[in-house]
Amino acid sequence: MASSEYPASTHTPRYLTGDAAGIREFIDKFDVFLFDCDGVLWSGDHLFPGTNETLELLRSKGKQVVFVTNNSTKSRADYVKKLAGLGIPSSTREQEEIFSSSYSASIYISRILQLPPTQRKVFVIGETGIEQELRAEHVPFLGGTDPAYRRAIAPEDYAKIAAGDPSLLDPEVGVVLVGLDFHLNYLKLALAFHYIRRGAVFLATNIDSTLPNAGSLFPGAGSMSAPLIMMLGGREPVSLGKPNQAMMDAIEGKFQFDRQRACMVGDRANTDIRFGVEGKLGGTLGVLTGVSSKEDFVEGAVRPAAYLDRLADLLGCE
Amino acid sequence: MASSEYPASTHTPRYLTGDAAGIREFIDKFDVFLFDCDGVLWSGDHLFPGTNETLELLRSKGKQVVFVTNNSTKSRADYVKKLAGLGIPSSTREQEEIFSSSYSASIYISRILQLPPTQRKVFVIGETGIEQELRAEHVPFLGGTDPAYRRAIAPEDYAKIAAGDPSLLDPEVGVVLVGLDFHLNYLKLALAFHYIRRGAVFLATNIDSTLPNAGSLFPGAGSMSAPLIMMLGGREPVSLGKPNQAMMDAIEGKFQFDRQRACMVGDRANTDIRFGVEGKLGGTLGVLTGVSSKEDFVEGAVRPAAYLDRLADLLGCE
Repeated sequence: MASSEYPASTHTPRYLTGDAAGIREFIDKFDVFLFDCDGVLWSGDHLFPGTNETLELLRSKGKQVVFVTNNSTKSRADYVKKLAGLGIPSSTREQEEIFSSSYSASIYISRILQLPPTQRKVFVIGETGIEQELRAEHVPFLGGTDPAYRRAIAPEDYAKIAAGDPSLLDPEVGVVLVGLDFHLNYLKLALAFHYIRRGAVFLATNIDSTLPNAGSLFPGAGSMSAPLIMMLGGREPVSLGKPNQAMMDAIEGKFQFDRQRACMVGDRANTDIRFGVEGKLGGTLGVLTGVSSKEDFVEGAVRPAAYLDRLADLLGCE
Repeated sequence: MASSEYPASTHTPRYLTGDAAGIREFIDKFDVFLFDCDGVLWSGDHLFPGTNETLELLRSKGKQVVFVTNNSTKSRADYVKKLAGLGIPSSTREQEEIFSSSYSASIYISRILQLPPTQRKVFVIGETGIEQELRAEHVPFLGGTDPAYRRAIAPEDYAKIAAGDPSLLDPEVGVVLVGLDFHLNYLKLALAFHYIRRGAVFLATNIDSTLPNAGSLFPGAGSMSAPLIMMLGGREPVSLGKPNQAMMDAIEGKFQFDRQRACMVGDRANTDIRFGVEGKLGGTLGVLTGVSSKEDFVEGAVRPAAYLDRLADLLGCE
């Protein structure tokens, strides 16, 4: 659902930094906190001060914590390692607390899409996170990190691709899944385009145009889909990351929580906050340590119920 | 100018194939014929039958022939070789008969853009055709076919790019020029994005989404700009190829022809025919050997004055 189809926010979000009573009241409303990660808990490889203490505070109050990330380059197992590496203490649930767009996409392909037996293979533009999650769901795939695709297109490839030569276009591919790929190239784009033209379902792990890193922005997964969208005359992929509600349904399916008692925490109005608003969660909480500005949260089309300068300001409830 | 800003065509184009009197009348109206190449004179490396005879016919009637191509991978010198390789006899003018989008872009940068002396370098996403034309105009450039840019992004690059490290981001770059690049990669996209964010002018040789080859379609120059457009929140490059009128102005500047006595011949309604219509040429002629269909020409928003099944049908005037 595009934001234009959703009624624009008109309320003024509550500013909670320094408001101890307001924070207590806000926290008490929820049993489950869904956290976007990059820009909220950390930036790149830099853990924000107070992240651990804030997560501990919520857990000590009996809150369920779920990490919801659009970053498709890592699997859930990779994320457990990333959390550990950043010094975030693991809970008893470990991997089960993590939802990534690569996991969401794999679940969608294996359990929702009804692919004919002869069209079950996935052509992947993306990194190892997608491959690991597809493997866990027993979905056959090609492309991805296979070095055979990390080469320039050769003159003889054009005629082969045009003719549908099975040495380059596997006839059993029924899905093209596009995520962030640090090794995107012309050959992969040409193959993905031809698979989709031959009838493959066009999926994206997520459509974030940029990827925050080192305090700046770099090409995101959406930028990998952009050439294909243009070549297909504007046809967009089904995106399985935030704000797509397929991801919310998958999270709810696993935790069986009451949406009215759940809060989405994020730094991006148009993905994180929209994800919570369109998922009809009881609350949304914006933080100013990532992409969206105070102006975005207070005057934008999609606004959180409340916002903070930084997540650790929740510690101010005591 | 977007096609939506231009009044839509409502006339019924004249179908000239087999109409000897109609063809003679049509040819007599013009002194200059501007030809799109791929899809009109040839397809990939396959010269259409009758192309040579048709060009000879026009030249024998004293018509000026100009080849106008959006393909930026070749320079005008490369095009002379391509014409010769396909068996198209050269005229006395040779290179002067050829206008490519890489030439048009180079002229625009060197003669139209008023760049400060410290911002004169061009970061190129593209192939050798662009480099040759920039060199001919004495425009300094980097990127392009330099093997140093044909590598994966490294972990340490993020912080360097974010910090504007001159080892990766040359402070003298004032233009990003994007053309068809068979070696497009993540590093080049990241650098182009950061140059534009730092103030560089965003140019494209052309914005064709696809490239015809081997009777099929492959990623075009527009698909190289698409990720950047998405990352920049929808900001589009200035395109120097058809249908941009900067290219028409350059052609007119060289040949000093009467636009009313000129005809654009092409296979794409939205680039070639639009180029002629918006350039207020006396006529446009569509051929059905490329991208656009009869339906596009007869019912579309941009229609040629006349159309043919194939260019060589012009020989039917005798």
